[in-house]
Amino acid sequence: MKKILILNTGGTFNKIYNPIYGSLEIDKTFNALEDIANKWLCNFKILNIIGKDSLEMTNQDRLELLATINQSKHSHIIVVHGTDTMDLSATCLAEAELEKYVVFTGAMVPYSIDPVEATANLASAYGYLQALNSYGIYIAMNGTIGSYDKVVKDRVNGCFRAI
Amino acid sequence: MKKILILNTGGTFNKIYNPIYGSLEIDKTFNALEDIANKWLCNFKILNIIGKDSLEMTNQDRLELLATINQSKHSHIIVVHGTDTMDLSATCLAEAELEKYVVFTGAMVPYSIDPVEATANLASAYGYLQALNSYGIYIAMNGTIGSYDKVVKDRVNGCFRAI
Amino acid sequence: MKKILILNTGGTFNKIYNPIYGSLEIDKTFNALEDIANKWLCNFKILNIIGKDSLEMTNQDRLELLATINQSKHSHIIVVHGTDTMDLSATCLAEAELEKYVVFTGAMVPYSIDPVEATANLASAYGYLQALNSYGIYIAMNGTIGSYDKVVKDRVNGCFRAI
Amino acid sequence: MKKILILNTGGTFNKIYNPIYGSLEIDKTFNALEDIANKWLCNFKILNIIGKDSLEMTNQDRLELLATINQSKHSHIIVVHGTDTMDLSATCLAEAELEKYVVFTGAMVPYSIDPVEATANLASAYGYLQALNSYGIYIAMNGTIGSYDKVVKDRVNGCFRAI
Repeated sequence: MKKILILNTGGTFNKIYNPIYGSLEIDKTFNALEDIANKWLCNFKILNIIGKDSLEMTNQDRLELLATINQSKHSHIIVVHGTDTMDLSATCLAEAELEKYVVFTGAMVPYSIDPVEATANLASAYGYLQALNSYGIYIAMNGTIGSYDKVVKDRVNGCFRAI
Repeated sequence: MKKILILNTGGTFNKIYNPIYGSLEIDKTFNALEDIANKWLCNFKILNIIGKDSLEMTNQDRLELLATINQSKHSHIIVVHGTDTMDLSATCLAEAELEKYVVFTGAMVPYSIDPVEATANLASAYGYLQALNSYGIYIAMNGTIGSYDKVVKDRVNGCFRAI
Repeated sequence: MKKILILNTGGTFNKIYNPIYGSLEIDKTFNALEDIANKWLCNFKILNIIGKDSLEMTNQDRLELLATINQSKHSHIIVVHGTDTMDLSATCLAEAELEKYVVFTGAMVPYSIDPVEATANLASAYGYLQALNSYGIYIAMNGTIGSYDKVVKDRVNGCFRAI
Repeated sequence: MKKILILNTGGTFNKIYNPIYGSLEIDKTFNALEDIANKWLCNFKILNIIGKDSLEMTNQDRLELLATINQSKHSHIIVVHGTDTMDLSATCLAEAELEKYVVFTGAMVPYSIDPVEATANLASAYGYLQALNSYGIYIAMNGTIGSYDKVVKDRVNGCFRAI
């Protein structure tokens, strides 16, 4: 078994409902991934960084993501990321030509609203990493898994698909 | 992307609560996998066979499973199976030396009671199959994924682990 | 048993997540109340009107609510309503001095996100109506139940309380 | 508002799934009622006694229930009870002719499997008590609320109904 690091950068995956404002916001306690680990009876290391909706991510944030991956002793990494700019962050990492196995994932529906899609995306990334043997940057969303430049968000249908 | 067939044989994964008897029983409508497909926004082919708790599976059932896999045009197959005799069915398939990629999965907790573990097990099998390039029989449970003879049920702790 | 009519006017109770826009909106299929009826194994008549967030309710809408109640053959009525202007609609009905038993309820958290608070609010209104023997306009929220002018939204703590 | 005591005696309401044995058992931590209180944003006093499936309740247990109610300073009490012998315990209390308002409730489906029916039963009992003005022993289940000898379990359809 490969040891996997999950870098949690925020995004819809981590959104929770705030009853006072009637709005959805990033859960700063980041309970979603710990809840999955507990229920799945599976240990993986979780590191929370950035903590933003992906529309608010800056180049500075992407450099922080790159540096965190670069400095990590883990070679197998899942990045939980907002869906809107997942492609930008993945491209940024790809240009660095890291000798790492990195799979981006996220969710169209917050884990706290319905856990199925978020859990399935994450676990498919996890399974993919266990069998993967080529360095690179990948995306695993809605059952579509492949190189980061072959999996895109379909904004009309609200899911990711292969191109 | 590899096209994946899910063979659903029953087991805890598919159990639902019957309020009249106060008991858990296999859901003969097999809604769990369709529910995952709908929420995950992911298409996979589902074939329901046998429909039993794995303690009730017979050699006849295992031959049916083997024949179904053998005759399928799919080379990448997930078998959803009860946890108690998953090892027996996997061994039975391994002895047939099929030129197929087969991953067994299942659940310690019924999908209808809490969807997270069942969904994560299934999706990890799905992701593993997408990157796998050696024929064989595998087990994916609780984040432990590997050859069928290296992943076992830990009956004391109620989860699967590597040996 | 008193026969109860539920007038569903919309509000947070009926909100669902739209994954394409990442926003919460009133579910125009109004599935929440039917889902409660099915799971509670309880029959009550549901009538959907207005279908708005309560901040968007107009005087015209309130007159429609009043007319619907006035013309109904039911004397025991639950009004599912958004929380922000529940007091305004209740006051509007109270001024009409109807010979009816009317309990307003709603939710701080959408039923689709977590069903417990919405279900408890509705069922407490239902139970209250079964034992009530004074005409009037009441509010039942977060376990606080009483005359419409004695139960208010506490916007700081995000719940209703008695005054 | 009347202050309400909830006497939790166990029953299906409190059952949770044990993944090691694949069975349902009474949750000895009694989290269900606290979870409802937290999500409903409602304070009520909870006292856990007996902790049994109602088929296993003895006369001794019923005397304990009677004594607990008799000695309580609360006059408005909800008894959470298993459905199979709810009528026996209610009859036992009725014979004592207490000057109390007591509503029995419970669940056909465990709160941990699906919270809606259990929550609705409990909250309807709570609402009923707030408006009630005659001493007595009542049952509130599946939207049917009335004197303990007028509400019965329909074992064929798996719900309670009026007689």
